[in-house]
Amino acid sequence: MESRFMTRAIELAKTAAAHGEVPVGAVVVKDGEIIGEGYNMREQKRNALSHAETEAINQACNTLGDWRLDDCAIYVTLEPCPMCAGAIINARIKEVVFGAYDKTMGCMDSVTNLMNLPFAKDTTVYGGIKEDECKGLLTEFFEGVRK
Amino acid sequence: MESRFMTRAIELAKTAAAHGEVPVGAVVVKDGEIIGEGYNMREQKRNALSHAETEAINQACNTLGDWRLDDCAIYVTLEPCPMCAGAIINARIKEVVFGAYDKTMGCMDSVTNLMNLPFAKDTTVYGGIKEDECKGLLTEFFEGVRK
Repeated sequence: MESRFMTRAIELAKTAAAHGEVPVGAVVVKDGEIIGEGYNMREQKRNALSHAETEAINQACNTLGDWRLDDCAIYVTLEPCPMCAGAIINARIKEVVFGAYDKTMGCMDSVTNLMNLPFAKDTTVYGGIKEDECKGLLTEFFEGVRK
Repeated sequence: MESRFMTRAIELAKTAAAHGEVPVGAVVVKDGEIIGEGYNMREQKRNALSHAETEAINQACNTLGDWRLDDCAIYVTLEPCPMCAGAIINARIKEVVFGAYDKTMGCMDSVTNLMNLPFAKDTTVYGGIKEDECKGLLTEFFEGVRK
């Protein structure tokens, strides 16, 4: 785990917020280099599949020309939802680092933990990394929406 | 539920097999019409995200110009994996009809049931529809791979 990758994911989350999207950012890392990055684009793309993690995984698969992202890590500012947890499992990503916990949709601790099931047992997950900063972005965004 | 939509999903699964892909097909239906369809393209696209359901949901979002697929149903030949169950939840699809059960990855009954969790409680799921035909395609495909 290297905190500079979460710093980059936080920058991407800020880009999402600047576009009026719920601020979540993600990067996929292999051998110390970012091979895919993304931020939540659900509203811009009008597409239910366009979360930060799926955008980053899509780019990483394109970079490697392979659906297998073995030996990769993903850094994401918010605990993955069921879709994104599943995308991480399908891509065989071995390490997950997330920031804020998600009590509504989180599937790596909060609502359920898909990573404890047999199909994901070889993945290591670190939650709550730079949690305050990641959570702060979301709080600020939703306060702005209410105003 | 209308069996003609599963018939179309089975045709799409056969197209996947013809391309050397694990045979899974899916359609998204609104008001009695197909608004999105897809089949497993993981190998062709070299992309971990390219399952039958995500392809069909992507097309349906493009058709409607909306990430919300309320009042839609999805028909898929295989029980959804965690990613696809999550994509269905994120798109707010209200009815799921699947064919074969998946003991390894299935997240609507077999390994776990994401649809029992609070974030998915308003979705109706019918499993085992045209099960023999859907399962037969998969059995035939994997027998062919072994040869």
